Amino acid sequence: MKTHTVGDYLLQRLHQAGIRHLFGVPGDYNLQFLDSVIAHPEIAWVGCANELNAAYAADGYGRCRGAAALLTTFGVGELSAINGIAGSYAEYVPVIHIVGAPASTAQRQGDCVHHSLGDGDFRHFLRMAQEVSAAAAVLTADNAVAEIDRVMDEALYQHRPGYLLLAVDVAAAEIALPVSLPAAPAPAPQHSAVADAFAAAAGRLLAPAQRVSLLADFLAGRWQLQAQLAELREQRAIPAATLLMGKGVLNEQQPGYVGTYAGEGSTPQVRAAIEETEVTLCVGVRFTDTLTAGFTQQLPAERLIDLQPFQATVAGETFAPLSMAQALAALLPVYQQHCAHFALAQASAEEATAPAAAAVISQQAFWQAMQRFLQPGDIILADQGTAAFGAAALRLPQGAELIVQPLWGSIGYTLPATFGVQTACPERRVILIIGDGSAQLTIQELGSIQRDGLQPLIFLLNNEGYTVERAIHGAEQRYNDIAQWNWTALPQAMSLHSRAQSWRISETAQLEAVLARLSAQRCLSLVEVVMDKQDLPPLLRKVTAALHQRNSRAV
Amino acid sequence: MKTHTVGDYLLQRLHQAGIRHLFGVPGDYNLQFLDSVIAHPEIAWVGCANELNAAYAADGYGRCRGAAALLTTFGVGELSAINGIAGSYAEYVPVIHIVGAPASTAQRQGDCVHHSLGDGDFRHFLRMAQEVSAAAAVLTADNAVAEIDRVMDEALYQHRPGYLLLAVDVAAAEIALPVSLPAAPAPAPQHSAVADAFAAAAGRLLAPAQRVSLLADFLAGRWQLQAQLAELREQRAIPAATLLMGKGVLNEQQPGYVGTYAGEGSTPQVRAAIEETEVTLCVGVRFTDTLTAGFTQQLPAERLIDLQPFQATVAGETFAPLSMAQALAALLPVYQQHCAHFALAQASAEEATAPAAAAVISQQAFWQAMQRFLQPGDIILADQGTAAFGAAALRLPQGAELIVQPLWGSIGYTLPATFGVQTACPERRVILIIGDGSAQLTIQELGSIQRDGLQPLIFLLNNEGYTVERAIHGAEQRYNDIAQWNWTALPQAMSLHSRAQSWRISETAQLEAVLARLSAQRCLSLVEVVMDKQDLPPLLRKVTAALHQRNSRAV
Repeated sequence: MKTHTVGDYLLQRLHQAGIRHLFGVPGDYNLQFLDSVIAHPEIAWVGCANELNAAYAADGYGRCRGAAALLTTFGVGELSAINGIAGSYAEYVPVIHIVGAPASTAQRQGDCVHHSLGDGDFRHFLRMAQEVSAAAAVLTADNAVAEIDRVMDEALYQHRPGYLLLAVDVAAAEIALPVSLPAAPAPAPQHSAVADAFAAAAGRLLAPAQRVSLLADFLAGRWQLQAQLAELREQRAIPAATLLMGKGVLNEQQPGYVGTYAGEGSTPQVRAAIEETEVTLCVGVRFTDTLTAGFTQQLPAERLIDLQPFQATVAGETFAPLSMAQALAALLPVYQQHCAHFALAQASAEEATAPAAAAVISQQAFWQAMQRFLQPGDIILADQGTAAFGAAALRLPQGAELIVQPLWGSIGYTLPATFGVQTACPERRVILIIGDGSAQLTIQELGSIQRDGLQPLIFLLNNEGYTVERAIHGAEQRYNDIAQWNWTALPQAMSLHSRAQSWRISETAQLEAVLARLSAQRCLSLVEVVMDKQDLPPLLRKVTAALHQRNSRAV
Repeated sequence: MKTHTVGDYLLQRLHQAGIRHLFGVPGDYNLQFLDSVIAHPEIAWVGCANELNAAYAADGYGRCRGAAALLTTFGVGELSAINGIAGSYAEYVPVIHIVGAPASTAQRQGDCVHHSLGDGDFRHFLRMAQEVSAAAAVLTADNAVAEIDRVMDEALYQHRPGYLLLAVDVAAAEIALPVSLPAAPAPAPQHSAVADAFAAAAGRLLAPAQRVSLLADFLAGRWQLQAQLAELREQRAIPAATLLMGKGVLNEQQPGYVGTYAGEGSTPQVRAAIEETEVTLCVGVRFTDTLTAGFTQQLPAERLIDLQPFQATVAGETFAPLSMAQALAALLPVYQQHCAHFALAQASAEEATAPAAAAVISQQAFWQAMQRFLQPGDIILADQGTAAFGAAALRLPQGAELIVQPLWGSIGYTLPATFGVQTACPERRVILIIGDGSAQLTIQELGSIQRDGLQPLIFLLNNEGYTVERAIHGAEQRYNDIAQWNWTALPQAMSLHSRAQSWRISETAQLEAVLARLSAQRCLSLVEVVMDKQDLPPLLRKVTAALHQRNSRAV
């Protein structure tokens, strides 16, 4: 049995989980572990400009590869990252957060060392991390194997962050390794009494039904049920929609797809197709205020078959423990048995959106142009604000994906997340759409993107501040203004050897010309699109009105 | 009795504490309160590019004005700021952190609203904040007056952050105000039994002593004892030093000042002057690893009179409760009584530092030039790393101040802190010295500085990455490299109407020429100073060697 360090074992486990990149910022408490990282043949270090950006990058990476890892230093580093970790927790992304900590002796003695609060308590930040982690551990040489296994298993099972506090001496401690790595958890059995009972109940609800719809959301994507959902839809093209957060989970080119469901924020056609049914089949759905125009969904429990990660309900009756994949597998034969009677989705009347003729680029013109620009396999990241809500109306090409963060809703997230996504998928075309207010929060990762020679396409919607906030409250208040930047100068300012192209455009003809050029060649590009600060995509108009009302109602 | 809103009352209390600016980032949960802020005639809203930067700016403002306020939104905003708040906690700066929260009804119902974790628990972030706050409260219309008073009083008393969770409806709720604001807490009585006992004990230690030294640190600055310390030193010019963190607390032009004390990291003269005594008088001192070259101070308790914020000890005997100001007042007559016998500080031999003749700018040449450049009343901010440790060797002109953050040590802190400091003191010359690795973390505040027309002088030490980390571990490891930027292009990129001047220099003659120009006129300036990536100020060389040893010892 060969001896290795705790750091080596941790890297083995990360590698086993499919992780090939470690994002983070160095600090003197994590440099020993970083030596192991640099020495690892298959895990690459990806230094970021700051820790919040590193956490966002890891989150983006994890959404593409199923898991991600983040390394920060004690106190200052981990707390800078914690908003990103909280987002991964809220939106179910397993990011393993490794925190380099002062030597065990310094901790035991309560020394007043840098990056501590100076009060001798080295557990403040662990307690904070526990609020936003599936599992957390303080590693020692003795417990390292068991605790690394426990935290990683729990994080991967719950699809949520895990926290590992790794003192400098523990990282370098030599330990006896287990003979083999623990096997990945066995898949749940295909047949169980719970699954059978669930299938029977679902069958009783479906048997007499003629109007049945499918509503899928992001949790179906996190648990990788895309193929199973496509298989179900192949049996019968019932009306199918996602919420904005789950957009991309359903193949939007497959018959039956009707659009994005958003309660009263939906188009009348989508709303009718999903709500006016005898049964609505929900897979991995969470109803959030911003995605339902303020909880306006009309989906009574007695008409629902609702699949959640660890349980399912049929007309209000709960079946547990039952994984989503298992429930969907059990449902498929029942669905096949009855689906011949289900009404087909109506071919969605192409919305009569007149092509935007105005010279100035409106939200409408921008999204129409983006729709034409998209290609199969694209990954689109759209920041919270006009970008995400505009993207809701896109019809994604085959294999294309959309990454948004509407529940946690941390503006600026998508710029570093683009860095993580493009690192995870270097061959795919990655498109970032972000507002100026958002981009200012996290702009420095434009330097890292260029250092690593990545080539995402960035559309910077310049509407002079926080347009989404204007729409909710304070349309002309100066707190919704921001500093005005020269956006097109930034790629060159943030790289000594920039090969980026930049454009500032305000007319539709310019937009068409730039998009034609971007279609023809691949290169890091920043397109500043000047828009009116009060212009909103239609869905965002409805949503912000609802939020304004909710915020004001109690006042 | 006129009715006001909770928000109005909170603003009144902030105003009473001397706060005239509120830093932060808007979000839909804090816009109602922001309306009150905009309407307030004497408190100005200062929007920042992101929340961590806003927290740093508030901290810098608070160090200059005694207190500061920060406004963020629930979850995403407050957690982005929490590393800055933790720094204020560790280093004793009272920042009142106001967090706009979802409506009380949504919280009570556990709604799955944006910026929550989606689990219906709205207290996760409160619990996290409590780890780094002197006091915290969830405000309601009923408890608002009492709880705002309690949190603010506690924060100002402890000189540490206070946390107020302010739901949108609570901010706008009308309440009956108290007839008058609570009076500021009465000053502690000048004479008390504890103070008398302390003075007697101090007298017994001082009476036979001939070699007495004074060591002051940052807590003396936080509790504003500069004038009292100057008065004591006027009685007799005993050897006096500060630690790096407290640099500026003592008037360095007053007779007796010997330099910066750093345990084994001190010059031999400073070390002997402070340690080789019969009594050392410590005022507001905290010994931190980075400031003592790894706890190498030789100051046995039996020779110490040690004044801390809420207690004092004499030769190991503790006197409490006793405020630092009260203890110092009680000590003064005892000191006067005995000090005629105290040895005077030796006139410090000017260190024989040969002027740097080399063409290339060394650390030595840079700090010699800075010493000549400084003017009375300057405020210098030096980021953790080569900047802070280089600044330790400066002799500050009359009324000049140094702001560093060596205990919390969050790199990037000083750039937004410069924004806060210059906002607090628009008339003073503010000088920022920061490395390239640090500046990348928080660079976006260069936009806000320009938006507000502020004119600090920025010296950007470009040593191609994390030089301080290189010195501790991994001198040539690529994890200590960073993305290479075009620093001089950044001011123009981050402002549409930039009036900044920028230079990139690498030779001492260029440095002299630029400094001559900056002395002659005031304008926002960025000077990129290219330096060798392995060059270190002498103190930092000793400190990093000690840290490397501490991190490795247990390995």
